[in-house]
Amino acid sequence: MRTIITGGTVVNATGRAHADVVVDGEVITAVTAPGLITEADRTIDATGKYVIPGGIDAHTHMEMPFGGTFSHDTFATGTEAAAWGGTTTIIDFAVQARGTSLLATLDKWHAKADGDCAVDYGFHMIISEVDDGSLKEMRPCIDAGVNSFKMFMAYPGVFYSTDGDILRAMRRATETGSMIMMHAENGIAIDQLVAQALAEGRTAPVEHGLTRPPELEGEATSRAIALAGVTGAPLYIVHLSARHALEAVAAARNTGQNVFAETCPQYLYLSIEDMAKPGFEGAKYVASPPLRTRDHQADLWRGLRTNDLSVVSTDHCPFCFEDQKVLGRDDFSKIPNGMPGVEHRMDLLHQGVVAGEITLERWVEISSTTPARMFGLAGRKGTISPGADADVVVYDPAATQTISALTHHMNVDYSAYEGMEITGRVDVVLSRGSVVIADGAFHGKPGHGRFLKRDLSQYLL
Amino acid sequence: MRTIITGGTVVNATGRAHADVVVDGEVITAVTAPGLITEADRTIDATGKYVIPGGIDAHTHMEMPFGGTFSHDTFATGTEAAAWGGTTTIIDFAVQARGTSLLATLDKWHAKADGDCAVDYGFHMIISEVDDGSLKEMRPCIDAGVNSFKMFMAYPGVFYSTDGDILRAMRRATETGSMIMMHAENGIAIDQLVAQALAEGRTAPVEHGLTRPPELEGEATSRAIALAGVTGAPLYIVHLSARHALEAVAAARNTGQNVFAETCPQYLYLSIEDMAKPGFEGAKYVASPPLRTRDHQADLWRGLRTNDLSVVSTDHCPFCFEDQKVLGRDDFSKIPNGMPGVEHRMDLLHQGVVAGEITLERWVEISSTTPARMFGLAGRKGTISPGADADVVVYDPAATQTISALTHHMNVDYSAYEGMEITGRVDVVLSRGSVVIADGAFHGKPGHGRFLKRDLSQYLL
Amino acid sequence: MRTIITGGTVVNATGRAHADVVVDGEVITAVTAPGLITEADRTIDATGKYVIPGGIDAHTHMEMPFGGTFSHDTFATGTEAAAWGGTTTIIDFAVQARGTSLLATLDKWHAKADGDCAVDYGFHMIISEVDDGSLKEMRPCIDAGVNSFKMFMAYPGVFYSTDGDILRAMRRATETGSMIMMHAENGIAIDQLVAQALAEGRTAPVEHGLTRPPELEGEATSRAIALAGVTGAPLYIVHLSARHALEAVAAARNTGQNVFAETCPQYLYLSIEDMAKPGFEGAKYVASPPLRTRDHQADLWRGLRTNDLSVVSTDHCPFCFEDQKVLGRDDFSKIPNGMPGVEHRMDLLHQGVVAGEITLERWVEISSTTPARMFGLAGRKGTISPGADADVVVYDPAATQTISALTHHMNVDYSAYEGMEITGRVDVVLSRGSVVIADGAFHGKPGHGRFLKRDLSQYLL
Amino acid sequence: MRTIITGGTVVNATGRAHADVVVDGEVITAVTAPGLITEADRTIDATGKYVIPGGIDAHTHMEMPFGGTFSHDTFATGTEAAAWGGTTTIIDFAVQARGTSLLATLDKWHAKADGDCAVDYGFHMIISEVDDGSLKEMRPCIDAGVNSFKMFMAYPGVFYSTDGDILRAMRRATETGSMIMMHAENGIAIDQLVAQALAEGRTAPVEHGLTRPPELEGEATSRAIALAGVTGAPLYIVHLSARHALEAVAAARNTGQNVFAETCPQYLYLSIEDMAKPGFEGAKYVASPPLRTRDHQADLWRGLRTNDLSVVSTDHCPFCFEDQKVLGRDDFSKIPNGMPGVEHRMDLLHQGVVAGEITLERWVEISSTTPARMFGLAGRKGTISPGADADVVVYDPAATQTISALTHHMNVDYSAYEGMEITGRVDVVLSRGSVVIADGAFHGKPGHGRFLKRDLSQYLL
Ligand SMILES: [Zn+2]
Ligand SMILES: [Zn+2]
Ligand SMILES: [Zn+2]
Ligand SMILES: [Zn+2]
Ligand SMILES: [Zn+2]
Ligand SMILES: [Zn+2]
Ligand SMILES: [Zn+2]
Ligand SMILES: [Zn+2]
Repeated sequence: MRTIITGGTVVNATGRAHADVVVDGEVITAVTAPGLITEADRTIDATGKYVIPGGIDAHTHMEMPFGGTFSHDTFATGTEAAAWGGTTTIIDFAVQARGTSLLATLDKWHAKADGDCAVDYGFHMIISEVDDGSLKEMRPCIDAGVNSFKMFMAYPGVFYSTDGDILRAMRRATETGSMIMMHAENGIAIDQLVAQALAEGRTAPVEHGLTRPPELEGEATSRAIALAGVTGAPLYIVHLSARHALEAVAAARNTGQNVFAETCPQYLYLSIEDMAKPGFEGAKYVASPPLRTRDHQADLWRGLRTNDLSVVSTDHCPFCFEDQKVLGRDDFSKIPNGMPGVEHRMDLLHQGVVAGEITLERWVEISSTTPARMFGLAGRKGTISPGADADVVVYDPAATQTISALTHHMNVDYSAYEGMEITGRVDVVLSRGSVVIADGAFHGKPGHGRFLKRDLSQYLL
Repeated sequence: MRTIITGGTVVNATGRAHADVVVDGEVITAVTAPGLITEADRTIDATGKYVIPGGIDAHTHMEMPFGGTFSHDTFATGTEAAAWGGTTTIIDFAVQARGTSLLATLDKWHAKADGDCAVDYGFHMIISEVDDGSLKEMRPCIDAGVNSFKMFMAYPGVFYSTDGDILRAMRRATETGSMIMMHAENGIAIDQLVAQALAEGRTAPVEHGLTRPPELEGEATSRAIALAGVTGAPLYIVHLSARHALEAVAAARNTGQNVFAETCPQYLYLSIEDMAKPGFEGAKYVASPPLRTRDHQADLWRGLRTNDLSVVSTDHCPFCFEDQKVLGRDDFSKIPNGMPGVEHRMDLLHQGVVAGEITLERWVEISSTTPARMFGLAGRKGTISPGADADVVVYDPAATQTISALTHHMNVDYSAYEGMEITGRVDVVLSRGSVVIADGAFHGKPGHGRFLKRDLSQYLL
Repeated sequence: MRTIITGGTVVNATGRAHADVVVDGEVITAVTAPGLITEADRTIDATGKYVIPGGIDAHTHMEMPFGGTFSHDTFATGTEAAAWGGTTTIIDFAVQARGTSLLATLDKWHAKADGDCAVDYGFHMIISEVDDGSLKEMRPCIDAGVNSFKMFMAYPGVFYSTDGDILRAMRRATETGSMIMMHAENGIAIDQLVAQALAEGRTAPVEHGLTRPPELEGEATSRAIALAGVTGAPLYIVHLSARHALEAVAAARNTGQNVFAETCPQYLYLSIEDMAKPGFEGAKYVASPPLRTRDHQADLWRGLRTNDLSVVSTDHCPFCFEDQKVLGRDDFSKIPNGMPGVEHRMDLLHQGVVAGEITLERWVEISSTTPARMFGLAGRKGTISPGADADVVVYDPAATQTISALTHHMNVDYSAYEGMEITGRVDVVLSRGSVVIADGAFHGKPGHGRFLKRDLSQYLL
Repeated sequence: MRTIITGGTVVNATGRAHADVVVDGEVITAVTAPGLITEADRTIDATGKYVIPGGIDAHTHMEMPFGGTFSHDTFATGTEAAAWGGTTTIIDFAVQARGTSLLATLDKWHAKADGDCAVDYGFHMIISEVDDGSLKEMRPCIDAGVNSFKMFMAYPGVFYSTDGDILRAMRRATETGSMIMMHAENGIAIDQLVAQALAEGRTAPVEHGLTRPPELEGEATSRAIALAGVTGAPLYIVHLSARHALEAVAAARNTGQNVFAETCPQYLYLSIEDMAKPGFEGAKYVASPPLRTRDHQADLWRGLRTNDLSVVSTDHCPFCFEDQKVLGRDDFSKIPNGMPGVEHRMDLLHQGVVAGEITLERWVEISSTTPARMFGLAGRKGTISPGADADVVVYDPAATQTISALTHHMNVDYSAYEGMEITGRVDVVLSRGSVVIADGAFHGKPGHGRFLKRDLSQYLL
C-alpha cells in the first residue's frame, strides 16, 4: 500500500521544501522533488498546505486518578481527540500508587491503554514512593521502554518526594542514563499558604493561584537543578509557567548542565485573570502550577525562541466542570487540578507562527521534533524522513476555526479556549501510514495505536 | 544525469537515517529508503559512511590585502582546499578600501573570484568607511545578494569604525533587515597596550596575545551588543575566542536579543602556549583575536552545545611563514594577522564528535545547517533534502589521517595543526551534483563554483 | 575660644548618641555625655535637633567654562550657598584646557578660589589631554593634594578621552594610588543620535534626554569598569543616573573590584517628564547624563541602601535660564549642560529619611562620611569626633521650608525644585569652629574657607 | 569612679582618631583630644595601641546539649575566655527542646547563665517546634529582649524545620519586626549522602565534609532567601562557609532584600584538608557547615570587603577531643559538631588587617559595630562614643603570640589553630567600666556580665 502526499510544503525542524512524501505501509520511504514518484495506491493533494511530522504531546494524563475521581478522557477518547488536533503520539504518565511496585503500575497502565488508542503512545513513570524496591525497578522499566521518571516537589502526602528521595532517584537516573522529570513547586510551603487562606475564609478558585506564587516555582526549580547538579542527573522541568523558573533554567543551561524545560499552551495564552472570573467559573482554569499574570507570557514565548524552553506539551488532564470541578465549590483546594488541551496544542502554537512569535520550523521543532529526540523516539517520530513512521499531518495554514466545547472531541464539558478564533487547521492526519483524520471525519480505530518502547534521550552528552 | 549515493547514514541537523540520496543534475531530488530507487547514471557506495550536507565556511579571506601583502590562497587554491576538506561553500569578505564605494568593491571581488572557484561562494561586505554613500549602497548590495556587513572595533586607522559609525550602520541594517557582523576587540585600548609593549622592548610573537587580553574582547562584545540593542540591529559576533565574550553573548541571547556568534577551530584546539613557542615559531599562530589560555577551550565547547555559539567558521587567512610572517620578526605588531584553516574545519569538528563534546547532528548543524540558515541559503544549502543543491559529502568516520603542510592543499607553507592525528576523513565530495573529490583526487575545476546571491537570514523574527 | 553644642542628638555614620560636642578653636576636642563639660565661650542649644558632620559635596562646578559661557556661581556665591544648605566642604573640578598643563590649570583654579570661599574646598582635576606631559604631572598634582582625576567618555571634541587615553591614565593612577573619576556616557554614539535628531528637526529640550539613552550610560560604565579591571585602577563613576549603569557597578563590586559610584539628588527626585514641560521650560533640567524616566528612581534609592551607590553629590553647575539656557532655544544641543543644587542636597536627602528610604545614619554617611573617606579627608571631615575639623551642622528635623529661587542663595535665576516642600532645615552651621550660619543669617566671610590638600582614598586595599 | 584611657588610637567603624576615652562608672562619657580631661581615678596608658569597642560574638553555644553530650564551655568558662580575647559581649542560643515552650526554654537558659558570666550576654532563640504555641510566644520573647529566632534547614529529626514551618515563622517575624536566622544546609539531601557514605563503609571524619557539599549550602541559602522574599521577613544567614551561598546572598542584597550573612574565622583560615588529617585528628575540625576547599577562602574575604558578609562570629561550640569527639570514631556522623573559637576571633580577624585583606576600621565593624547594630545593641555596644557601655579593648598591634591549647582559656582540650602565630594581642579589656583583663591576668568575676535585652535590628527599613 503506497500513499503519496503531493504538492505541499514539507516542514522539518531545520527547513522547508516543496516536496512529495512517499509512504509505503507504515513508514515514510522517500521525500522527493514534486512528481518524481507518481505511482501510488492513494494520493493526497497537499497543494498550498504544510506537510509536517505528526505532533508529539509528551505530557498527558488519560483516565488518571486524582482526589477520588479520574481525569475524564480515556485513552480511547483522548487519543482520538489528539488525532483530530494533529497529534499522533502521546506520552502519558503511569502513576505509582503507594504500595504498588513500578512494574505492577506499568502493567496497570498497559491494561488501560492496550487496544484503546487511536494513535501511538508511550509512558513516563511517576514515582510516588522512593525505596530500594522502586529504585531497583527503574532498570526493568527502562528495558521496557519507560525511561523518564517524574517526581513531585508538590502535593505532600500524595505524590510528594522529599529532597532525599529525589537525590536517591537522581543518582539512579545517572547510573542508568535515564531522565528525571520534575513538577517543581515547593508544595510544603504552598500547603502553609493554602491553610492560611482557608483559615482566613478565602475559598474562591483564584486563591489557588494566589497561594502558589511564582517565587515558589522558581525556588523549587532552582532546588531541582541543584540536586541534579550534585548527582549528575539529566533534568526535565515539566509545565514551566513562571519567569522565575525560566531564569533558573536559563542560568543552568548557560553552564552546560543537562537541564531542559517544557511549557504548555495555557501558560502562553491564559492568565490568572481567567481564574478570577465571577462565580465558580475560574475553576475551569485550576491546574498546577497555576496560570500566572499576563506579563509572564512574553517571557515564555522568548524562552521558546531562546530554547531555554524546548518543548510544548499540554499537561492534558480534563475534569468536567459540572460534576468534577464542582467538588471544590466551597474550598478551592478541593478542585481537581487540571485542564483539557490535547486537541488544540498544534493549532495554538500555530498562532505563534501567525503572530510572529516563532518561525514555522520552530513550530515543528517544539511540538514534534524535540519531544521525539528528548524522549527516545528520534528517527521514528518527529521528522519527515525516510525510515520514520508515517505520522504525517497535512495542515492548512489558511483555514480558520473557532474553538468550542460544542465541537471539540475531548470528553469534557468545557473548553478553556471557548470562542477563540484560530488561523490554521488540521486537514489530513496519517498515523503509521493510515489515514485517521480526513474530510472532517475520524477514520481511525481504537487499538491502531501501538505502545512505543522508547530509547534513551538523544540530548544527553 | 542521475547520481545515487547509497547505503550510507544520512545525517541532517536534527536526525540521521539509513537512506539513499538521489541527485538529478545539480540538485537533490529524493531521499529514500535504501534501494527504493536504483536506476542511476552513477552510484556511489556510502556503506559505513556518513552522508552529510557539504560544509559551509562562513568566514574566509582569499587573496585579502593586509599590511602591504595578500593572504596567500587565491580563490582557486582556497576553494580547492575547501573541497578537499568537505566544504562546498565559502562566504568570503569583500573589503572596502577607503575611498572606494561598496559597489565598486563588490565588482572588484567578483572579478577576483569569477571563473576561479572550485565550489560555490558568497560575499560579506566589510565596511571601512561609514558615510552617506556607503550607507546608501547597503541596499543595492543586499539586492546583489550581499546582506551581511562586517565592521571592526579593532585595527584603528585601517578597518576600525567608531561607535558612531557602527550606530549609523546598525540603524541602516535594521531598516534593511540585514545583519551586522562584528570583529569585537577594543582596538583603541589594544593599541595602547601594544605601544607600551614595544616601548618596553617586548617584541616576540607571544606579545601579540598578551596585548590583546580577553577582557578587551569581552568589553567590545558587550558594547556591540549594547549598540545593537539601541538600534534594533541583528548582530553576529565573528571569531569569538574568549569566555568573557561568550558570557556577554549568552546574557544577551537569554533576553531574546538577535545576537549570534561563531567561533573557530583554532580557539577550540590551540592556545597562547603555541604563540610562546621558541624563536619566531609563534608567529604561525598570530591572528586576531589571539589564541587564549587553554581554560577557555572547555567554555567554547560548552557554548557550542548551548547554542550561544551557533556556527564554526575558520577565519581562514593564510600567510606564509617564510616570506610573510617574517615581516614581524622584530616587531610582533607587524606580523600579518591570520592562520590557514579552510581545509580542516570539518575534520577538526569531527574530533569533537569522537571526543564526545558534540553529537553527530550538532556537527552538521554548526558546520553547515546553521551557516546556511544564518546567511540566507536555507533550502539551497546545509541540508540533505529534495530541492537543495546537491552539495554532498561522504565522510568516512573510521578512516584516520595526519594533518601536515606536506600533504595539505592550501597554498601556504605551514600548518597550525602539523602532526595532529585525526579520526575521520572526507571520502567523496559533490558540489552541485558534480563529483569534485573522490578516490583521493580532485576532479573539480576552477569556475565550477558559482556566486550565491543570498537571501536575508532565517534567524531573525 | 570654646564652643559647646549641647543637648542634641549627635549622628555619625554608624550610630547616634545624646551628647555634647566641644569645639576648641577650629577643631572638635570632645564628644561627651550631656553636661560633662560646661565651661565655654559660646553655647549652642541643639535640644531636639541633630548634630551632624558638615556636608561634603564632592562634585561641584563653580565658574566653570562651558560652551562659551560660565556656570553662574562663583566660588564666593557658590560656597555661601553651600553653607546655607549645611555643606561645609566642596570638591570642585579644575578643568584642563587643551594646551594647558595640569599644574598651570591647578594654579588657575587656585587663583579663582583663593580668598573667595566661605567654606573649605578641594579640587579634582579634569584631564582633557592625555599625553606624556599630563601623565607626568599626575604625581605633582597628587603631592599638591589633588589625587582624583576625572575623564570623560562623553563630549567628543571637548573633554572626551579615547579608550586608549583612559587606559594610559588609569595605568598611571594605579602606579600612584590615585583614582580615576569617570563621566560614563558613550559620547561618540550619542553624537550620532543628536545629529540624527537635529537632521529630523527634533530640537526641543526633551530631545537632550532622548538622544542620551540609559543603555549608553550602562555601556560606558561597563567599559570603564573593564578598562579599570585591565589596569588595576580604582574607579569612581560620577553622577550615575540609570539602572543600567547601576547594574554594571553592582556586578563589579560583587567581584571585589575597586569601583564606586555617586548619584545626585536630581536623579532621585526629577525625571525626563520635567524636560518635556511645555515651551522651553525643559531647558532648566538639561544636564548630562539626562534625567531618566521615573522608574529609575526606586532603583537609585535601593542602590543607596545597598551601598552600590555610596555618595550623593550635586554636580552643581548652574546656568541662568534667561541669558544662558536660552542659547539652545532652537537647538537642544546648544543648551548649557547643568543644574543648580549645592544648596539643597542635605535637605533633599533628609527627605529620604523622612520617607523611610534611608536611615538617619545613612543620610550622614552618603552626604558626608563616605565622601570624606573616599577623597582623602578621613579624620578631618565627615565625622563628629575629637581631632576632626569643627565642621558641624545643627539640623532641625521638625522645621519645614519650601524651596524657591526667590529665597535660595545660589546665583541663578531658577530652581529645579521650585515649590517643593521640605521637612527639616539647617539651623546652625560651623565651619572649622566659626559660626557661618545662625539665626537665619550668614555670618561667614569669603576667604574663611581653606584649600584642602587631600590624602589618598581610604577605600582602596 | 572615672577611668581615662589615654594616648591611644581610637578606632571606630568609620574612622580613627588620636583621642582619650573617659569612662565614668559603667559608661563612656567622653571621647576627647589627648589630655583634655586628666582628672581620673585610674589612667590606662594606650600609647601605641588601638582603643576599640569590645568585640561582640553574635554566635556562641555554651553548655549546649548536642547528641547526648554538652558543649564543653560553661557560661562561666566561655565568657572568661571571650574576655581574654577582647570579646565583651556574646549572644548565645537558647535551644527549644521539643515539647518545651519558648518561654520555658528562655527561663532555662537564664538559669544557666545567670550569675555566671564574666561579660554581658544576650540570647537568640532556636525554634525547634513551630506550632501555634511557639508562634504566639515570639512576641513575649521579643518583649523579653530576645528577637532573633534561629531555624535549621539541617539536622532532620533534631532541629530541622520544614519549609512550611519556616514560612509560618517568617510570617510571624514580619509581623513582629523580628529576624529569622538560618542554618542553611539541605539536611534532607545531606542525610541521604551520609547514609550512602556509611553504607559504602566510608566512616572517616573527612566524610563529614564530603557528604555536605557546598552546592547544598548554596541551595538552602537560595531557598531561605526565596521564602523570606515571599513573607517579607528579614533573614540572617549564620556561619556562611561557601562561595555558592555567598553568591545567593550577594544577588539578593543587590535587589535590596533584607538579607544578611555572617561567616566564621574557621572558614577564613581552615579547610577540608584539615579534616583529612591522618587518623581521627580530622574530628577536631568537624562542624556544620563543614570546612571547605581552600579556594573558598578568598571569596569569603572578598565578601567581607563587599559587605555581602557583614559579621564574623565564631559559632563557638567546643567538644573535647578525648572524650567527646571520640564518640564518632567509627562513624563520622556521630562526631559532635562544633569547634572552639570564642577566644581568638579578634586576633584572627586582626590577621586580616595585617595581611591587607581588610582595613582597621572594617575589623572593628565586622567584629563589633555591625553585630551591635544588627542585633539591637546600637548605642550601647559596638562603638567608642559617649553614652555607650564602657566595653573597651586596648589592643597592641605590635605584640605577637602563638595560639595553643596549652595557653588558651577555653575549657577544651585542643585548639583548631594550634601553633598559629599571631601578630597583635589584647592588652586591657574593660567590661562596663570594670577592668577584666590587664597585665596578663583575669580580673573579672562570674556574674559581672548582665543579660542584654536587645532592641530590634537597626538594619531593617
Ligand atoms: Zn505536574
Ligand atoms: Zn501533569
Ligand atoms: Zn576579524
Ligand atoms: Zn576574518
Ligand atoms: Zn560629567
Ligand atoms: Zn560634573
Ligand atoms: Zn548552625
Ligand atoms: Zn551554631
